[in-house]
Amino acid sequence: MEFSYKNQTKLRVRYAETDQMGYVYYGNYAQYFEVGRVEAMRNLGMSYRELEENGIMLPVADFSTNYYAPARYDDELMVTTSIVSVKGARLKFDYEIHNDKNELIVKASTTLVFVAKNSMRPIKTPATFLELLKKYSL
Amino acid sequence: MEFSYKNQTKLRVRYAETDQMGYVYYGNYAQYFEVGRVEAMRNLGMSYRELEENGIMLPVADFSTNYYAPARYDDELMVTTSIVSVKGARLKFDYEIHNDKNELIVKASTTLVFVAKNSMRPIKTPATFLELLKKYSL
Amino acid sequence: MEFSYKNQTKLRVRYAETDQMGYVYYGNYAQYFEVGRVEAMRNLGMSYRELEENGIMLPVADFSTNYYAPARYDDELMVTTSIVSVKGARLKFDYEIHNDKNELIVKASTTLVFVAKNSMRPIKTPATFLELLKKYSL
Amino acid sequence: MEFSYKNQTKLRVRYAETDQMGYVYYGNYAQYFEVGRVEAMRNLGMSYRELEENGIMLPVADFSTNYYAPARYDDELMVTTSIVSVKGARLKFDYEIHNDKNELIVKASTTLVFVAKNSMRPIKTPATFLELLKKYSL
Repeated sequence: MEFSYKNQTKLRVRYAETDQMGYVYYGNYAQYFEVGRVEAMRNLGMSYRELEENGIMLPVADFSTNYYAPARYDDELMVTTSIVSVKGARLKFDYEIHNDKNELIVKASTTLVFVAKNSMRPIKTPATFLELLKKYSL
Repeated sequence: MEFSYKNQTKLRVRYAETDQMGYVYYGNYAQYFEVGRVEAMRNLGMSYRELEENGIMLPVADFSTNYYAPARYDDELMVTTSIVSVKGARLKFDYEIHNDKNELIVKASTTLVFVAKNSMRPIKTPATFLELLKKYSL
Repeated sequence: MEFSYKNQTKLRVRYAETDQMGYVYYGNYAQYFEVGRVEAMRNLGMSYRELEENGIMLPVADFSTNYYAPARYDDELMVTTSIVSVKGARLKFDYEIHNDKNELIVKASTTLVFVAKNSMRPIKTPATFLELLKKYSL
Repeated sequence: MEFSYKNQTKLRVRYAETDQMGYVYYGNYAQYFEVGRVEAMRNLGMSYRELEENGIMLPVADFSTNYYAPARYDDELMVTTSIVSVKGARLKFDYEIHNDKNELIVKASTTLVFVAKNSMRPIKTPATFLELLKKYSL
């Protein structure tokens, strides 16, 4: 199933996240994408925290990113997160980050897997989540 | 009870750990002290990992540090960790970090508390740990 | 000189900031204090970013913190930052963090030093900064 | 040009690097790959630190990773880094990480770009670096 759900969230680059090149360290964007998808899910009506409290986890299975321009200290970044597809246990997100001059900083994609906490085995995407996504179905 | 146990461990500054000032970010030293105390305990014969697997945790209750000189990317640092005292549930470590020119970078001190994982309440310092420390008693 | 300036800023705990104890890692609070002081300065009318662009840096000279209760994933935290004193090149901040049930999580204190970027030597607190603080003088 | 150069380096998972799932946070592997490529270059005879001191930087242009099994706290990991190709300004590394039971944890790939520090523009791969790689040419 493919979806057209999109959400935007802002964050500001911390000093800790820069490196001596004066840019955001390439590995720190993973945190920005995490913020993006958690807020995208929250906005849809699904709390990732509650999901875990109900025994379901969402580890990342794959992650890829392309860097177009550096983000710098104190930049206010716009993270645009899209839920693009669900297939069995697998949930795919796409991301774009722009700075406040609307320059493209990075594009990325992650696949997450719904997993039962007790068995650590993949499970089908929860029906409640699919229900929330229904109206964004393509 | 006071002790004279000391251990040294080396680590190399990662690019991720620097900030745009070109120095190690002030908050990242906490990780270096963690490495120092884990290796100090391991060298004494106590694995922090096994401690947790046996239902005991060691959260940090207080932490203070003084910065004397900056550490830089790729510096090889020597972390000197001392176990200085045990008092009820509380375990105190001191730390010094020097670079490879033997310049003092930071001094720090942490108090950790032995806590039972199921109740999250303080417990007495495990007898096995005190046994390992005995010969360093002051 | 002592001051009574206080500022509050909110942030949400990221998954990346937790550790396997299920709490915010003790070293990650340093980032929260950084966010607190940068926003406190911005609210006062001083951009830390511009300060650096004008050749002045503010490295941390000492840092101490007491942990009262754990912060957890997805908690919305209130960081209260106070500028407490200026003495020569030295600027002292105090911090308190509470969760959304108003429980005290940590208290902390840092001393920062105004430093010229080219010489890396301490300089007097900039007059423009003292001017902004004047009305909060005790 | 394609190469067969491979290097191995060990590191131990820090508590700070785990998250509340009890695994290494997916974004923290970027640091492990950084350690891998810095040590791979050092072993070849090229210090990344000196490269920067000579006005050349190596920002990451793209990064992709697949997660096969979780790494856990205190695991000793083996990072295997391969220099696979050089093309104009672009340098491609592949990585594999195994734990001490020889289980595959992650595979990853990054492309880095040689850039002049003053202009921030791509430059040809330095001849000294190609010279060091020559005997690994495929």
